[in-house]
Amino acid sequence: MGSMILPATREEALALDAADPIGRYRDGFLLPGDLIYLDGNSLGPPPRRALERVEEVLRGEWGGELIRGWTSRGWIDLPARVAAAIAPLVGAAPNEVMVADSISVNLYKLLAAALELRPGRPVIVSEVDNFPTDLYVAQGLAELLGGRCELRLVERARLREALDPEVAVLMLTHVDFRSGEMHDMAAWTQAAHAAGALVLWDLAHSAGAVPVDLGGCGADLAVGCGYKYLNGGPGAPAFSFVAGRHHGALRSPLWGWMGHAAPFEFATSYQPAPGVARLLVGTPPILSLAALERGVESVAEIGISQLRAKSIALTELFIGLVDRDCGGQGLELGSPREPARRASQVALRHPEGYAVMQALIAAAVIGDFRPPDLLRFGFAPAYVRFVDVWDAVARLRGILDRRSWDRPEHRARRKVT
Amino acid sequence: MGSMILPATREEALALDAADPIGRYRDGFLLPGDLIYLDGNSLGPPPRRALERVEEVLRGEWGGELIRGWTSRGWIDLPARVAAAIAPLVGAAPNEVMVADSISVNLYKLLAAALELRPGRPVIVSEVDNFPTDLYVAQGLAELLGGRCELRLVERARLREALDPEVAVLMLTHVDFRSGEMHDMAAWTQAAHAAGALVLWDLAHSAGAVPVDLGGCGADLAVGCGYKYLNGGPGAPAFSFVAGRHHGALRSPLWGWMGHAAPFEFATSYQPAPGVARLLVGTPPILSLAALERGVESVAEIGISQLRAKSIALTELFIGLVDRDCGGQGLELGSPREPARRASQVALRHPEGYAVMQALIAAAVIGDFRPPDLLRFGFAPAYVRFVDVWDAVARLRGILDRRSWDRPEHRARRKVT
Repeated sequence: MGSMILPATREEALALDAADPIGRYRDGFLLPGDLIYLDGNSLGPPPRRALERVEEVLRGEWGGELIRGWTSRGWIDLPARVAAAIAPLVGAAPNEVMVADSISVNLYKLLAAALELRPGRPVIVSEVDNFPTDLYVAQGLAELLGGRCELRLVERARLREALDPEVAVLMLTHVDFRSGEMHDMAAWTQAAHAAGALVLWDLAHSAGAVPVDLGGCGADLAVGCGYKYLNGGPGAPAFSFVAGRHHGALRSPLWGWMGHAAPFEFATSYQPAPGVARLLVGTPPILSLAALERGVESVAEIGISQLRAKSIALTELFIGLVDRDCGGQGLELGSPREPARRASQVALRHPEGYAVMQALIAAAVIGDFRPPDLLRFGFAPAYVRFVDVWDAVARLRGILDRRSWDRPEHRARRKVT
Repeated sequence: MGSMILPATREEALALDAADPIGRYRDGFLLPGDLIYLDGNSLGPPPRRALERVEEVLRGEWGGELIRGWTSRGWIDLPARVAAAIAPLVGAAPNEVMVADSISVNLYKLLAAALELRPGRPVIVSEVDNFPTDLYVAQGLAELLGGRCELRLVERARLREALDPEVAVLMLTHVDFRSGEMHDMAAWTQAAHAAGALVLWDLAHSAGAVPVDLGGCGADLAVGCGYKYLNGGPGAPAFSFVAGRHHGALRSPLWGWMGHAAPFEFATSYQPAPGVARLLVGTPPILSLAALERGVESVAEIGISQLRAKSIALTELFIGLVDRDCGGQGLELGSPREPARRASQVALRHPEGYAVMQALIAAAVIGDFRPPDLLRFGFAPAYVRFVDVWDAVARLRGILDRRSWDRPEHRARRKVT
């Protein structure tokens, strides 16, 4: 625990909420009253305005306008409009971001683009602990391209030496999905550039939670998630970033009509639209984009510096209370202790982590488990309260004190969390 | 006009509706009362059950369950569940269909898969008048793969001779998006197979409108659209079909975590899930899938044979009334006159087609325009009435008689229709 004095009572935690300058924004979200929701890093809850907006799109726009909605309600511009709203959250210019498809599909586009931007350099470098889908996408591309693409996968400590003249792109996830540890974006971007390579950042656990300055770092490419801290709903579309200096030579392998310079001329040959608009492929999903637009607003209106300040306060409080109240219970911190290196989530290691998390969920504290032994807690600053942190630690302590995780119903593995 | 006797009065058209065995299903859709909607081939209207379902998902599932919804509400199984509901509409087994991504992205997966299934044969054959995005996807893949992939684009009349031993796959759209003309699926599938090639059918304007028997024809691969006759909402996810006999060797180039055999083990290396589940890539879009599930039901409950019978009656009536009432106005039929060769849409050519369509839209008859001169009318049998056809032709006649299309506001080109 850094500068914060730990509350001694639940009332003191409530007092922290009362003094919280962004506490009022919680009312903008629909959250079940009886839950402590510490999994916004997996799926953000619905902003009320997103629910209202989708309801309006359903009956007023889809039902009321039908096909005319593409123009009369601006559906056709929605991907670029949502992208422009995301841009300031990640330090990008509005025309450097596009919203389309999933993170995985966008990674595919940008990895292929990176190979084209660095001809003669076939290697994609990443770390073995990167989020799996990032690695799978690169593996699939390498399989398709044979000798023209190779994924070089190394331990984090060996990343720098992996950056040799064969490397087209260094692909890293800014925030480690297990530990919440943040890479130094500026330093790694510089290291990649020094080796003549590009850098591609996966911002899945960053966008809307921690400050990101793609432009200031000189980053080349990035992807990010719509359904975590941007609160766009389950399976919301993802976003891509391409630095303006690469727009001229940008080539995605996925050529679809929505990325054509003139889609409604129905020409036989593909002509890419200018800039990141060529990253569009098929028809954009309007219901999902409508939710995402309001989801982005739900964090953008607070502003990333206020979000970050509260996020640090929440994670500091959690770590401090766990240290103080759950000692000797087999828990270990699985995240950096230094706030500057930690994003908006905290991982705790426990040999019976799976069962402990199931017991917590049964006690209405929703986090998640990541193999082999991680209890993962997300502290989304737009709606998580200090008292939630207090209550979560109190229940965790109770579960560990009473060993109430040690029951068959908590040990039984379910299909998915 | 075939066997149907043309109604002489609007009352006779209303009588056709009164006798229509599937007329009652129209009440299941939300349609603006004042519109004649003949563009369900571009975007189906909302089934009321789809609206209610998405509303329930928004507040009850996203809001009420949050991350738990993936298991507690079965979100994780939704792509396969919707796919299984689509399967009988296209003559597929439930495990031969998957719902994910857009048509364009699915075409990319399946074209690449086709090249792998037919090694040493680098050619994709298609026709120049195929829907543009199909061609763009193939062009993009060819660009990426260099000599390992070539798109051979020919006129329809030269398709058969294009099927030489270099060809891996014949890619055709079953229903021509301009004319509504249907390819003979069985004959072309057989022709492709005779040449040692696979066939990939784009069912965008077929699924939910005309009988399709992928299994009976022995088709290999197909894609289809969720937002046209399946009424899944603007930009709804698309579906893919892969015949069971190809599942073992099926390889998509888009490797994402949702297509992994065990996504929640977070393994470093990709292992494809069995069968078509490997066509999943990123996290599925739940709001859109929920709408699509009910959209599919909205046609499946009627059944394709009743839908087809009414569709033929509607298009026959339209063509018959245009012939009878709009003669000498410069209109030409742009669709096959023989019902068996025509899907659920009718195109009319007119030298001022764009302006005529704008005037029709201003008169609350919604069709669309396709360059260079096509007025395109879709007759979705689940909700279009015979009296709608009567009224549409009456308004078309009025516009042509009075030349009311010849106004600046109708001639002005808008960005998109």
